[in-house]
Amino acid sequence: MSKPDYVEIVEEVFYKYKDKKTEEFKYIGKNVVRWDAIAKVTGQPVFTADLLKLVKNPVFVYSVRTKYAHAKVKGIDYSDALKYPGVLAVFTAKDVPGINDVGYVIPDQPLLADRKVRYIGDTVALVVAESLENAREAGGLVQVDYEPLKVYLDPLEIIDPETFEEKPHELIHDERGTDILTRYKIRVGDVEKAFKEAAVVVENKYETPFQEHAYIEPEAAIAIPEPDGGVTIYAKTQCPFDTRKAVANVLGLPFNMVRVIAPALGGGFGGAEDVGNEIAAKVALVATRLKRPAVLIHTREESIIGHTKRHRTISWYRHAAARDGTLLAVEAKVILDKGAYASLGPFVAWRAVVHSTGPYKVRNAKVDVVAVYTNKIPGGAFRGFGNPQVTFAVERQMDSLAEELGMDPVELRLKNVLRNGDRTVHGQLLDHGVGAEEVIKKAVELSGWYEKRRLYASLTGPVRRGIGIAIFYHGNSIGAEGADYSSASVIIQRDGSIIFRTGLTDMGQGAIQGLINILAEVLGVPPNYIKVEAADTAATPDAGPTVASRSTAMGGNATLVAAYKLRQRLNKLAAELLGCGSPDDVVIEAPKVYCKDDPSHTITWRELVEQAFWKGVPLQEFGFYRAPPAEWDEETGTGAPYFTYTYGAIVSDVEVDLETGLVRVKEATTVYDIGRVINRTGAELHAIGGYIQGMGYALMEDLYYDSAGRLMNDNLSTYHIPTARDIPEKFNVYFVEAGYYHAPFGAKGLGEPSIVAIAPSIANAVVNALRSKQANKLVNKHPLTPDYVYSVIKKAGVKP
Amino acid sequence: MSKPDYVEIVEEVFYKYKDKKTEEFKYIGKNVVRWDAIAKVTGQPVFTADLLKLVKNPVFVYSVRTKYAHAKVKGIDYSDALKYPGVLAVFTAKDVPGINDVGYVIPDQPLLADRKVRYIGDTVALVVAESLENAREAGGLVQVDYEPLKVYLDPLEIIDPETFEEKPHELIHDERGTDILTRYKIRVGDVEKAFKEAAVVVENKYETPFQEHAYIEPEAAIAIPEPDGGVTIYAKTQCPFDTRKAVANVLGLPFNMVRVIAPALGGGFGGAEDVGNEIAAKVALVATRLKRPAVLIHTREESIIGHTKRHRTISWYRHAAARDGTLLAVEAKVILDKGAYASLGPFVAWRAVVHSTGPYKVRNAKVDVVAVYTNKIPGGAFRGFGNPQVTFAVERQMDSLAEELGMDPVELRLKNVLRNGDRTVHGQLLDHGVGAEEVIKKAVELSGWYEKRRLYASLTGPVRRGIGIAIFYHGNSIGAEGADYSSASVIIQRDGSIIFRTGLTDMGQGAIQGLINILAEVLGVPPNYIKVEAADTAATPDAGPTVASRSTAMGGNATLVAAYKLRQRLNKLAAELLGCGSPDDVVIEAPKVYCKDDPSHTITWRELVEQAFWKGVPLQEFGFYRAPPAEWDEETGTGAPYFTYTYGAIVSDVEVDLETGLVRVKEATTVYDIGRVINRTGAELHAIGGYIQGMGYALMEDLYYDSAGRLMNDNLSTYHIPTARDIPEKFNVYFVEAGYYHAPFGAKGLGEPSIVAIAPSIANAVVNALRSKQANKLVNKHPLTPDYVYSVIKKAGVKP
Repeated sequence: MSKPDYVEIVEEVFYKYKDKKTEEFKYIGKNVVRWDAIAKVTGQPVFTADLLKLVKNPVFVYSVRTKYAHAKVKGIDYSDALKYPGVLAVFTAKDVPGINDVGYVIPDQPLLADRKVRYIGDTVALVVAESLENAREAGGLVQVDYEPLKVYLDPLEIIDPETFEEKPHELIHDERGTDILTRYKIRVGDVEKAFKEAAVVVENKYETPFQEHAYIEPEAAIAIPEPDGGVTIYAKTQCPFDTRKAVANVLGLPFNMVRVIAPALGGGFGGAEDVGNEIAAKVALVATRLKRPAVLIHTREESIIGHTKRHRTISWYRHAAARDGTLLAVEAKVILDKGAYASLGPFVAWRAVVHSTGPYKVRNAKVDVVAVYTNKIPGGAFRGFGNPQVTFAVERQMDSLAEELGMDPVELRLKNVLRNGDRTVHGQLLDHGVGAEEVIKKAVELSGWYEKRRLYASLTGPVRRGIGIAIFYHGNSIGAEGADYSSASVIIQRDGSIIFRTGLTDMGQGAIQGLINILAEVLGVPPNYIKVEAADTAATPDAGPTVASRSTAMGGNATLVAAYKLRQRLNKLAAELLGCGSPDDVVIEAPKVYCKDDPSHTITWRELVEQAFWKGVPLQEFGFYRAPPAEWDEETGTGAPYFTYTYGAIVSDVEVDLETGLVRVKEATTVYDIGRVINRTGAELHAIGGYIQGMGYALMEDLYYDSAGRLMNDNLSTYHIPTARDIPEKFNVYFVEAGYYHAPFGAKGLGEPSIVAIAPSIANAVVNALRSKQANKLVNKHPLTPDYVYSVIKKAGVKP
Repeated sequence: MSKPDYVEIVEEVFYKYKDKKTEEFKYIGKNVVRWDAIAKVTGQPVFTADLLKLVKNPVFVYSVRTKYAHAKVKGIDYSDALKYPGVLAVFTAKDVPGINDVGYVIPDQPLLADRKVRYIGDTVALVVAESLENAREAGGLVQVDYEPLKVYLDPLEIIDPETFEEKPHELIHDERGTDILTRYKIRVGDVEKAFKEAAVVVENKYETPFQEHAYIEPEAAIAIPEPDGGVTIYAKTQCPFDTRKAVANVLGLPFNMVRVIAPALGGGFGGAEDVGNEIAAKVALVATRLKRPAVLIHTREESIIGHTKRHRTISWYRHAAARDGTLLAVEAKVILDKGAYASLGPFVAWRAVVHSTGPYKVRNAKVDVVAVYTNKIPGGAFRGFGNPQVTFAVERQMDSLAEELGMDPVELRLKNVLRNGDRTVHGQLLDHGVGAEEVIKKAVELSGWYEKRRLYASLTGPVRRGIGIAIFYHGNSIGAEGADYSSASVIIQRDGSIIFRTGLTDMGQGAIQGLINILAEVLGVPPNYIKVEAADTAATPDAGPTVASRSTAMGGNATLVAAYKLRQRLNKLAAELLGCGSPDDVVIEAPKVYCKDDPSHTITWRELVEQAFWKGVPLQEFGFYRAPPAEWDEETGTGAPYFTYTYGAIVSDVEVDLETGLVRVKEATTVYDIGRVINRTGAELHAIGGYIQGMGYALMEDLYYDSAGRLMNDNLSTYHIPTARDIPEKFNVYFVEAGYYHAPFGAKGLGEPSIVAIAPSIANAVVNALRSKQANKLVNKHPLTPDYVYSVIKKAGVKP
């Protein structure tokens, strides 16, 4: 069977530009200011809640949440609430016309609680009033008759860590008959034999915390009822098409009757994946019932309680190595604390199992990942998506192993790291640019690894310095999780200006600017010719979700395909108009267009476009790209789970105060192989932003519950994230460009990768600073708060 | 050079279905309820002004219009207006950031008057206030220092009817150096010789009146300033892309920074072509300056004064015929009363010249058409676009000729009418279905022509009956006027529902339902799977203007191309999934899909669509179609001005009250060759609606000015249009389907054609009723008001 045209186009462009250096491009790899920078820095109204200033006569929707983390709902009396001034209606589960569910992957999550509540964020009723204040106040008058149930906060109450079997307990999801959401495994080689033959074995338990996305913009959604019975929704959502599907299900409408528009997002990080669906469904329900615009705006507290988190994990890792450091086997058990609902948990668990042995040659592996329901805020999508959790364990293991072997951690990694032509633990042949070795070497060079390693070993006094490395790989896009396609729409207007659309969203990550650069480069026009319209399910084809570090590769491919087809047609026309020898001889440097051998004879871009209109040359294209199929064998954990991988090496240089346990990162080095840099400014700032968010994860962030399942730190005054004063003094950012032939100009994703290995690099640096074998063993979880680090210092007996 | 794929697709489909009868289609030619019927009849908010209920914090824009129909503007003092309560700003010509012009074809029409005013609708200032009332009241306080100039209301003051040369006068458009806007001509054969050899010559002067579109919805526009400095406009406009261009020019922005969305229009008829540009530019100017939503809503009076009209014409026709009725020559001079600005006048004049000899074999012709500025409301686009005016003259001439020859008017027409293989007066070979003869014969049959002709000749008493025929042809689409392309966008959603978009608008004419039928037929899905989104310049490619009876043919072709490509891909996939022998064997009757030889083995449409997402089959298509090139020689008036023609024959059966002059149409027969009926309900109602509007044009509608150029009948209480009580008791509607291979399933346009020959058919019927050779000469203008008809009765001495 012949390749689809879109695959051929992407390959052709890749090979044509493969050896080009950044200097030879006009926009690819350059520092281009993002298209929306001016509007954002001048405070223009670009976010969902900003639209409120345009919407007349709205009603406000307040979510009445449960008082119990686990209870039966025996009745709801909202008669008092209805009498409250300004209150228009109260809606409960019985008012849902379609399916009362917003579960992302499986239907386990009611939009409005019916029989049960399962965590403190569950909504039992929606109060609708003329003002948000009235709605909120009336919410206090909704009387719910609960029958409290036992609250499960620790997954180890539900699963036996030894047998990995479910323990007898009062089921949270009694309708499912089990509180085990999902299991994944890898069974490769002969682990038992490898462990027997190993010279060194290290075994540790690890724990990683919950993490809150802490995006600047809390959730907001506005629904406008449409004359035909449909609804238009403006919402903070990363994935407008998924949101549309959720709303359509709740309302019982076909997809085309629900229109979802995603204004700019003030941060997403995966957190705006399923909460977008929930808030959109809430306002859509109200708007279609009351025939008025409906608005929902979360406070920070509602945001933190109401949206998913990075899954907490508990894992047990056993690594076996030969005397020379060669990895012989990995055995691991990983528990994901799912919280109350599946959300994206099944996919997170799968990504965790895929990445569970790190970017190393591993021939023998036995891994079990299980996701277990508890009565906490659901774990969901968060930048990295299961990979940071397992990478923390793997990379701590590698340092423990290095210590046992007496090897430098860098040497141990170089000994085992995946290289071109190797196979991953899943048996996947890495047949294209694997920059893993190069990123390690470059990170070592830029960070001054060996010098600092030597220097820090000799420091004395109460403030120690340490330097640690961690490496990782990260499968691009959604892999074997789903149908992996993307699309884009490019319409050249009659004056030569261009309208670009994609169903992918910009949550601040700047991926859209990458698409602009691709479009500009291929067409030969300056980026400011291109106007980006908001993602709109009624105006763009489904581009797939804006997740999984897929925007640049997948969205970029779709954009490239559209741009390429348009460029081909324009080249042909321009060659005719100018008399060029061949269409390939046409140079477009808008506003100039000429034949390459006669730059003095030009027509303008606008003239070329006008001629296309006269001569019947279509100037609109939908770009489409379907990723190469991924494979996964559920029984063995083998196949080709992702079509390509991003590689990275992080070196963190930290200071540890032995008297307080306070850790500060002084210098951070991040080196990523992203195939090809598309927008340098964006990539560099992404590397830095990812580091800082990873640093928060490493050093300070976690959720704390009381025994009744109430969240204790539901505000940014108690949930601490890094501030400007916490940021390292120096960043070294570098990119390796070992391109991928199924990606636009070879580019791979950086979105998630930029956080994956930050925490272990910092933890390894802290261990290095403490210079204690016992500390190496003790640093087996994060956040590395002063309390925790101080306790390690005490236990390990580290003295200034 | 090979044909573009879109041309091949349209031809292939045409020939495949050429001989299919309506019964064999699922949706083509059937009675399908239009997609927006429910929303409209239940009073849902679908029009532009309805959106006001959604827009918060708007400012209101009032246009201060000139007091003089022709004057110099020496100064504007709006200080008092600025002090009026609620007034926020006053804008004049100096505030326009871009080009102060909204001329549709040539730049002769300032948005805001600068040096001069040229008719009583000219806007001198925009007053912006918190309420429309305040803005309107403050408008009265704007002081303009005018220097009045001579007002020209009669084009014969400007042009000599004999020489057709411009007379010396004070120029209205002094900047142009002439008040002749444009001239067109035909010079074919040897007219002088033909007249010498003719057996019969008839010569008459004709006049046709202005006509107001009188759409139900007066103009409205709402502009929302965008964060990036651009603007989004919701406006009553037939042609969103033209409106966008006008606004972009006024604001000095590239096209992609101006977004125009056209909600449902409550009527258009051509009137919403350039007024849309003007109102959009006004609100856009205000919104971008004040950074608030800006609203403009016209009263009926502002609407009538502020938008263009059908051009009044004065013409002189001379026809020569042989004794057997064969037409030998036509000589004609036609003056279009342009009013103050060009608007679409150049194109209207061109269409007039093209159609100036009617659908007859004419080998010798000398025609001059001239458009002359006056100080009246500009003539612009109106259903028929110059053709009704010349057709009135031609068809009255034919009846005069018949009288002179002693022939039945039907026989004379059948003798001369164009048939397949004939050439038009321009020398254009009619190489495909010419239904002209058939429409005449069918109209004669359905109307009972011969019987009534006999019967009515014998009636006596004060109330006479008469029956008249008129025929016509009408070039489809914009022909040699411009680049003639269209496009559409079809996106199949993952649940199988479909989003359809086109930049064409629906002003009530229902053409969009035709596109839905085409899409449904080709894809094999019920029409209710398809959701039509509003025309939106930021979401659809330029589809060309919604004018010139082009929506079904041109928009239909674009839709067909998109649907065909999708169907091909789906057939291929379905054949694989079902194991059909060939993709052509796939039957889609959504929700069922099967191989034609095994209807019991089905998959669902939704499954097929889902598989397409998994297998990388793109389910979005831009359909594009570029019309075959048209040709026009300016010197001789020859070429191929339009790619195809609609033909029609109208028989009107009237009652004339000899004592009052009142004319009532009792029965109307309309037969059109539209190639292929796409939506029968729409076509039939269109034929009826067109007849009624044409009847108003024939019997009652005209504009009356005082000597200062002030319009005397600027409201529907003084400008009369037919009401339900005026409608004929019986309509006979029939369609001939002599298909066109460059059109979707062969379909040609009916939008304009349905009005073209109404007035002459009624006038001919009135003459028939009066049974007087002198009356035949005297009925040379319309409207045939009771006054006018009574004067004819008196002059001709017709007695009961």
